[in-house]
Amino acid sequence: MSALYLDDLTPGDAWTGAPIAVEEADVVRFAREFDAQPMHIDPQAAAIGRFGGLIASGWHVAALVMRDFIANNPFGDTPLLGIGVDELRWLKPVRPGDTLIARREIVAVRRSASKPQLGTVTMRTTVTDQQGDMVMSMINLMQFPTRPM
Amino acid sequence: MSALYLDDLTPGDAWTGAPIAVEEADVVRFAREFDAQPMHIDPQAAAIGRFGGLIASGWHVAALVMRDFIANNPFGDTPLLGIGVDELRWLKPVRPGDTLIARREIVAVRRSASKPQLGTVTMRTTVTDQQGDMVMSMINLMQFPTRPM
Repeated sequence: MSALYLDDLTPGDAWTGAPIAVEEADVVRFAREFDAQPMHIDPQAAAIGRFGGLIASGWHVAALVMRDFIANNPFGDTPLLGIGVDELRWLKPVRPGDTLIARREIVAVRRSASKPQLGTVTMRTTVTDQQGDMVMSMINLMQFPTRPM
Repeated sequence: MSALYLDDLTPGDAWTGAPIAVEEADVVRFAREFDAQPMHIDPQAAAIGRFGGLIASGWHVAALVMRDFIANNPFGDTPLLGIGVDELRWLKPVRPGDTLIARREIVAVRRSASKPQLGTVTMRTTVTDQQGDMVMSMINLMQFPTRPM
């Protein structure tokens, strides 16, 4: 597999991931381990609760979006090393049966002043459901290698 | 179990979670599902890579911190509903064998102007390892109910 380097990226470059099917069993399994609240793990309690049914943990949605990023990686062998995330917003509850699509767009590309082999890429990720509604958005800061000399 | 409401929270209120043991099997299992890169899932490849060994997916660290928040929930029955996260930073690689501690501090408490039964809490979460080094920090925005009349 080939690789993309910092030098290959330009603000405005964008990619769309594959459909992400949100399955009830996965929603419950993730939340039992990491976010065991009734709205995420207990269909009966969730049905009479505020959301009228199970909703996915926001951290599960973020993890599913990361999985799609790896599976449909536009950068080839380049390691995807996250420095951080800004402006992460969970905008609409994600429910079992939903199908999500992530779109990623390069916002900024910066070379490191001190380390010529590295730079920083700022990427905006937006995630929509099958109705076209945005369910999550975030700004990802990633460390990225420059092309080897 | 009792519950805390927006009315009960004051900026400066802080809680420390329980020790979070980072286990290699969990690091690999999470990453195989959500972040299947060699640095997270392949001990041999990771050993000769940049970090000299396996490191946890940043999303796994965030999920472990959420699990601790639920397990050591200072808010009782109040649902912990995330609106978003700002300034999430992965500051130091987390490795199998590390033991993490999360500290949470209320930064701001705001009543909703339009919905008297709801408000927003801003919480700063910092996560340190057994050496006292900060490995992750973030600002959490949460929706919080006010005390029922």
